[in-house]
Amino acid sequence: MSENAKTQSEFSFRVLKEDPESRARLGAIRTAHGCIETPYFVPVATLASVRALGSDDLAALGARCALANTYHLHLKPGDETIERLGGLHRFMAFERPIFTDSGGFQAFSLGYGREHNINKVGGVFPEGRTTDEKKENLTRISDQGIRFKSMHDGQWHFLDAKTSMKIQSRLGSDIIMAFDECTSPLSNYDYTRRAMCRTHDWAALSLQHHDQRQALYGIIQGGWFEDLRRESTDFVSALPFDGLAIGGSLGNSKSDMHQVLEWVVPRLDLRPRHLLGIGEIDDIFECVQRGIDTFDCVTPTRIARRGSLFIGPPAGNPENKFRINIKSAIYKEDRSPVDPECECPTCRNYSRAYLRHLYTSKELSYFRLASIHNLHFMFRLMEQIREAIKDNRLPGLKKRWLKKN
Amino acid sequence: MSENAKTQSEFSFRVLKEDPESRARLGAIRTAHGCIETPYFVPVATLASVRALGSDDLAALGARCALANTYHLHLKPGDETIERLGGLHRFMAFERPIFTDSGGFQAFSLGYGREHNINKVGGVFPEGRTTDEKKENLTRISDQGIRFKSMHDGQWHFLDAKTSMKIQSRLGSDIIMAFDECTSPLSNYDYTRRAMCRTHDWAALSLQHHDQRQALYGIIQGGWFEDLRRESTDFVSALPFDGLAIGGSLGNSKSDMHQVLEWVVPRLDLRPRHLLGIGEIDDIFECVQRGIDTFDCVTPTRIARRGSLFIGPPAGNPENKFRINIKSAIYKEDRSPVDPECECPTCRNYSRAYLRHLYTSKELSYFRLASIHNLHFMFRLMEQIREAIKDNRLPGLKKRWLKKN
Repeated sequence: MSENAKTQSEFSFRVLKEDPESRARLGAIRTAHGCIETPYFVPVATLASVRALGSDDLAALGARCALANTYHLHLKPGDETIERLGGLHRFMAFERPIFTDSGGFQAFSLGYGREHNINKVGGVFPEGRTTDEKKENLTRISDQGIRFKSMHDGQWHFLDAKTSMKIQSRLGSDIIMAFDECTSPLSNYDYTRRAMCRTHDWAALSLQHHDQRQALYGIIQGGWFEDLRRESTDFVSALPFDGLAIGGSLGNSKSDMHQVLEWVVPRLDLRPRHLLGIGEIDDIFECVQRGIDTFDCVTPTRIARRGSLFIGPPAGNPENKFRINIKSAIYKEDRSPVDPECECPTCRNYSRAYLRHLYTSKELSYFRLASIHNLHFMFRLMEQIREAIKDNRLPGLKKRWLKKN
Repeated sequence: MSENAKTQSEFSFRVLKEDPESRARLGAIRTAHGCIETPYFVPVATLASVRALGSDDLAALGARCALANTYHLHLKPGDETIERLGGLHRFMAFERPIFTDSGGFQAFSLGYGREHNINKVGGVFPEGRTTDEKKENLTRISDQGIRFKSMHDGQWHFLDAKTSMKIQSRLGSDIIMAFDECTSPLSNYDYTRRAMCRTHDWAALSLQHHDQRQALYGIIQGGWFEDLRRESTDFVSALPFDGLAIGGSLGNSKSDMHQVLEWVVPRLDLRPRHLLGIGEIDDIFECVQRGIDTFDCVTPTRIARRGSLFIGPPAGNPENKFRINIKSAIYKEDRSPVDPECECPTCRNYSRAYLRHLYTSKELSYFRLASIHNLHFMFRLMEQIREAIKDNRLPGLKKRWLKKN
């Protein structure tokens, strides 16, 4: 069935080269909408738009693909509407490969995420919430699926594996995700095991119900428990998925996350590996070396909108997280571009002083110019990583950026 | 001195053709930063950014010029800062002609405008204010100049003709405006006369103090009083300005505005004529026929951000003000572009359904795509008007749009 699905979805993945010193690898994902060279950073187009950007911007940036959120599009404007309008590619005028997630992560972010006030690597949500502020849990999870209350109209909705597959089919994305439950880093062993077992049942159901024209990735769960991660890896990878995604929780720190990858990745075969929701600069290096092919994350565009713009080494380093804060008064008359080595349209045309002016004046154009820079920066970083793998010099590149091997 | 100034500013204006049936004319303004074919609609870049757009968007739209606001840039980021950064063109990465206003209009909008709660053609401000809500007058006007309180920090600033010329010189725009006082449609005859006399004194002072490298337009005031408008026209046009602008108040209705133009324009010579702050579709036709060469107005981009998108005839007409409201539920599954005849990037790529989705989802990309459409629409309208003047068919074009001669 997998071979059949692959043929029908025009999906394939080839490993072109393996790094001799790590699990990093160079690859190429092919879909009906084109090819993605890996390792790659997939920009997030939550509501069928990478926030503040048009599809012309994505084309100008050379974005090879994007990831849209099933949960959000199901509620707004509705997957049936998008299907009647000709599918997601046509709707958002983006003719390259589109990933969709399964909607399961929203069960986390509206359920445990709200209750525990944490994100998937254990950090508190950055939206200015305090830890003692406890939100209503808007989600009810059972073995059948997830009931959740819409943030838009307060109506209850139900999502299960079959529905998730149906919605993703209507959206018409190229690469879809199996329905899963993403647990919290605060979930205990017993709860995490129960959620993992549900995820495994849903994995089988997703395979059974998915649209054969779409490539389907299974999701490995198991939280931060070694035996559960191993069990989940072996279970999910034994199924005929087109690719494998690693879901949260990934523990409470970056080293926990690295540990999870070390439990999981060595047990996987050659199929493509996606790490869900991760993508800071240091994460990219560490996770590529641990065998990850693709990442999706809102961080580069979200921090751009909040004034944090990426800079490369030597000025950018792990201490400043490769960021400058453009609102700082020191940039008021700074004629230089955000990053002197960057060739993005923002850096080619505008000074730090101009971007600071737009930011402090709350001009709408800021959000686009800032997002263009941060995404270009990520794409260029991935390009450098691919080139380094090709030339066997990934450790040198990593050392230049992270000051460590 | 005017000839000298013209040479030094590389500014010239040529009337290429006059319409046999009206005062409409085809012309070309030349500046050191390029040529503007007239009649032309000048987009407003208040804070050195046409709201939601980058200079790459302006270039793609073929925008020939832009108008920035002296008052706003003086306060933020400061004209001295912009000068040190190489001037406005470099700051905003826009290498085409830039107009700046004198800052005088803000005296109106922060002074009488707030007190009387009206805009320059007598309409109430659209920001949801009620007429009985009376704001603090943040402006003190004397024969010397205008003291005003900054909206940003509450500090008092002072602007006079000499300062306005100095600020505009630092900004480095191509076409600058004489310092003036814009009165309210509710100002009585005596007050309007006093303000006009001040404006005349300031006109002479502006000529004396302006940067000879910049083309200077005088501003005709006089409110909605025939004798004052005639007096102001004769006084200002007798001075060696490079062009002439007609300032508000323009009365309490569109027909009042037409009347003002009929008092003023026949008394003018061939120099270019700019109508400040006007630019709805019907205004463009009526005012071009009454001899106006250039317009500036925030309306097309402002209404775009609020969901009103332009459509041409036959679907667009004076009753619907050539607008659709994209938030309407009727567009939820409408696959057609905003305007089927429009060739802007927004209409070429996206459906009404997609734009409605972005608008109702408050996606930042909406503001740019909507502004691109409305500005392209205005530029295309002006192009059609220029072509019609060339071919002696302006009345036919106007009739097709406004259903009247």
